[in-house]
Amino acid sequence: MDDVRLIAIDWGTSSARAYALGDHGNVVSVRSAPLGVQRVAGGGFADALSVLCGGELPDDVPLIASGMIGSRQGWVEAPYCRCPAGFEAIAASLVGVPGTRLFIVPGLMCQDIDEVPDVIRGEETQVFGALSDRIVARQVIVLPGTHSKWVIAGPDGVETFATFMTGELYAVLREHSILGRLALASVDDAALDRGVRHSLRQNAALTHDLFSARTLALTEVLAPTGVDDYLSGLLLGAEIAAARAWLARRSLARATVMLLGDAALSVRYRRALALAEIEAVLGPSDAAARGLWRIASHAGMVTDK
Amino acid sequence: MDDVRLIAIDWGTSSARAYALGDHGNVVSVRSAPLGVQRVAGGGFADALSVLCGGELPDDVPLIASGMIGSRQGWVEAPYCRCPAGFEAIAASLVGVPGTRLFIVPGLMCQDIDEVPDVIRGEETQVFGALSDRIVARQVIVLPGTHSKWVIAGPDGVETFATFMTGELYAVLREHSILGRLALASVDDAALDRGVRHSLRQNAALTHDLFSARTLALTEVLAPTGVDDYLSGLLLGAEIAAARAWLARRSLARATVMLLGDAALSVRYRRALALAEIEAVLGPSDAAARGLWRIASHAGMVTDK
Repeated sequence: MDDVRLIAIDWGTSSARAYALGDHGNVVSVRSAPLGVQRVAGGGFADALSVLCGGELPDDVPLIASGMIGSRQGWVEAPYCRCPAGFEAIAASLVGVPGTRLFIVPGLMCQDIDEVPDVIRGEETQVFGALSDRIVARQVIVLPGTHSKWVIAGPDGVETFATFMTGELYAVLREHSILGRLALASVDDAALDRGVRHSLRQNAALTHDLFSARTLALTEVLAPTGVDDYLSGLLLGAEIAAARAWLARRSLARATVMLLGDAALSVRYRRALALAEIEAVLGPSDAAARGLWRIASHAGMVTDK
Repeated sequence: MDDVRLIAIDWGTSSARAYALGDHGNVVSVRSAPLGVQRVAGGGFADALSVLCGGELPDDVPLIASGMIGSRQGWVEAPYCRCPAGFEAIAASLVGVPGTRLFIVPGLMCQDIDEVPDVIRGEETQVFGALSDRIVARQVIVLPGTHSKWVIAGPDGVETFATFMTGELYAVLREHSILGRLALASVDDAALDRGVRHSLRQNAALTHDLFSARTLALTEVLAPTGVDDYLSGLLLGAEIAAARAWLARRSLARATVMLLGDAALSVRYRRALALAEIEAVLGPSDAAARGLWRIASHAGMVTDK
């Protein structure tokens, strides 16, 4: 491992991915394991870290991790940084794990306009990996997922963000509600679009509109093979409608958004965003590794050569 | 059973309740059984009917039933009547079950302003039981439940209605999502109110707001014992906000609503409605039996003496 300068770990709830990074943060190797925070039995984090490092911990390479590993259920809690938060604030708030060379990146917390807190942990690192070093204009980054995140970043780093439970709502409704019982697994882009459009219309009301997945199937307007994608579309449309209004209240009505994360999900989001006339570009796929390198660099753990 | 004039059955998905009705539809006796449509094995409806009648079918008393027994998964399908639908339309659309004296009340179907169908099956009978015989003014009836229904009735009977999946959303989120994992069962009216108010505010966005049940607990603004009621309040507030806008579009912004159904749930709805400045009165608890009697009477199955 003589050319490895940093071990950077994206350590989430269900899985973890360790990147061995060389000069300039170039990826030397990647190791994934189902060793997420929820799957590591009490006290087993040190062993899990060894596995992620290929069997034994290097004694001369610094380590950095972000994600749920820093949550209350993780190894050592890294308290949320307040927004706005840039590289300096994050780098100054790294939390070391006693007895190791590992530092954990804190999550971020913001207060929305209704004074309700919102939190992010892990995705902020991807955002820092996707931002240019000198941010000049404000930009919008969307990270689809179980809890998708819309992030506004600017010269001060992450300005604010909002969480939408779209992925989790889809999963619980698909698996446990009456709507899932009607569905036959399939891919139906037209049904997806129909759902998105229905939630984007004026007077949309999700708790009512969800029932249309049932009535449209009952009246055979929607085929059983379309129910899944229609439901997904309704939820996605509700997220986009709310996020669009949220951006407009922050003078970002016409922003192009960058999508970060799973490629298939990003393409699905881009399709839905187009129906709302929001332009979307796909961001770099190695944003987590890049973000960890750059945070480590700002913290002086590595020199950016 | 010499003074019984009609056996009236509220026959739902999970349970059934049979009322023996005497002159003027007065309730002589009631029998409940867990013989809902989903629990009666294929072809067992005749046996279930005997049980509901106390062991054997009376050979000289007419029978009427409403609810899921008339659905595609029921005994005999009673196709949906189109709205507006009054007593005459319903009475003319009863469907007889071959080989029995049982008639089944159809459900109702309406098209909302976006041309999406909505359906009701069972609750329409309660509405007909709660209406006065000569409806003069339009009124709003709310039936809380797994799928709560807001019904607008007027001189032509049921004018239109809207379904909200509030109860089912609460159940799946409570049981299967990250929000349920934070909750400790309790009663917390202040948390309920907080959730309702949060969803009633301008710019409410349910898929985002749901996450506040997590962040408010995380930041200890909300006690674990308040998470359940806060979540319930968010969903209830989202229903009321959407229904209020729906009523306003139909010139019923200032209507007093009548709550029909489960008493505890009705009280909970009345509390939440008050926060939206919607006055609510509790309707009669025997609305299903009254509705079945009156439909049977309009169909000439009984004379209303």
